[in-house]
Amino acid sequence: MTTRAVAQRAQQPLGTVSYHFRGKRELLIQAALHTVEDLFPVSELAAVDTLTELISRIKVLLGDRVSGDSVLSAVLMETMREAARDPDLRQRMASLLSDYRRLLTDLMRREQHRSAMSADVDPAALAILLAAAGDGLLLHALLDSELDTASAFEALLTLLRK
Amino acid sequence: MTTRAVAQRAQQPLGTVSYHFRGKRELLIQAALHTVEDLFPVSELAAVDTLTELISRIKVLLGDRVSGDSVLSAVLMETMREAARDPDLRQRMASLLSDYRRLLTDLMRREQHRSAMSADVDPAALAILLAAAGDGLLLHALLDSELDTASAFEALLTLLRK
Repeated sequence: MTTRAVAQRAQQPLGTVSYHFRGKRELLIQAALHTVEDLFPVSELAAVDTLTELISRIKVLLGDRVSGDSVLSAVLMETMREAARDPDLRQRMASLLSDYRRLLTDLMRREQHRSAMSADVDPAALAILLAAAGDGLLLHALLDSELDTASAFEALLTLLRK
Repeated sequence: MTTRAVAQRAQQPLGTVSYHFRGKRELLIQAALHTVEDLFPVSELAAVDTLTELISRIKVLLGDRVSGDSVLSAVLMETMREAARDPDLRQRMASLLSDYRRLLTDLMRREQHRSAMSADVDPAALAILLAAAGDGLLLHALLDSELDTASAFEALLTLLRK
């Protein structure tokens, strides 16, 4: 697909699209980041108040949206592949992940404060673990649509509640 | 790279290489699967006896082997990307993951039996969670070499030991 085709589809002058995205590569990167971020918008994560709510939303996400969506799967994999060779994209993915982790850390801290979660685990370390487990389950569910990701989340909740 | 070049490098007749791998695509798939499996060989996982040993080996793996190895990172990402569009590769990755999970389930069960781990969590569900957390941490470490994956494993051990 050419930048010209994108401009036509968006009903914008070619110059506007080229100028705004500084070329096709930047346009593709923006589209990829948008897809990743759109999967679980940062603003939605910020509105989640409890661990139970978080897990139930991720469950819905993995069950309804992701399973069987081969286009989404292809875009996610392609973006990861690009990130492996593009330091700029990698840095922007890392920065997005860091935003997620900051919000998860705040959520853990709140849960510990209201004694809904064990207090002897570092919230920042848990946030790293939780973000990784979420993405890993997404990855494995994309490879194996039969995978029982719900049971893994149940196990996680049981562990966190002790 | 051509099949001919591979045959030359391996000092094998072209026919042997073509016949053995049934073409270039199968050769690339075998190479990719080999790289993935080589990261943490199934036979090595089978020899791991305790959770502590498992976590310490994954830590070494993430710290020494993976960080900064851009070739490994590129092969892993490329393999995932290919898996998104190749049902055969996807099925073989899923089957490899299922081998890992079976061994992890056995390990959890042994740990529960010797009371080294809490007994009220389903070992199979924990195996799904653990495999996903490991791959997710690998993925996030490839995107962000500064990520404190060790602290995430400490948090996981603390949770499992309760």
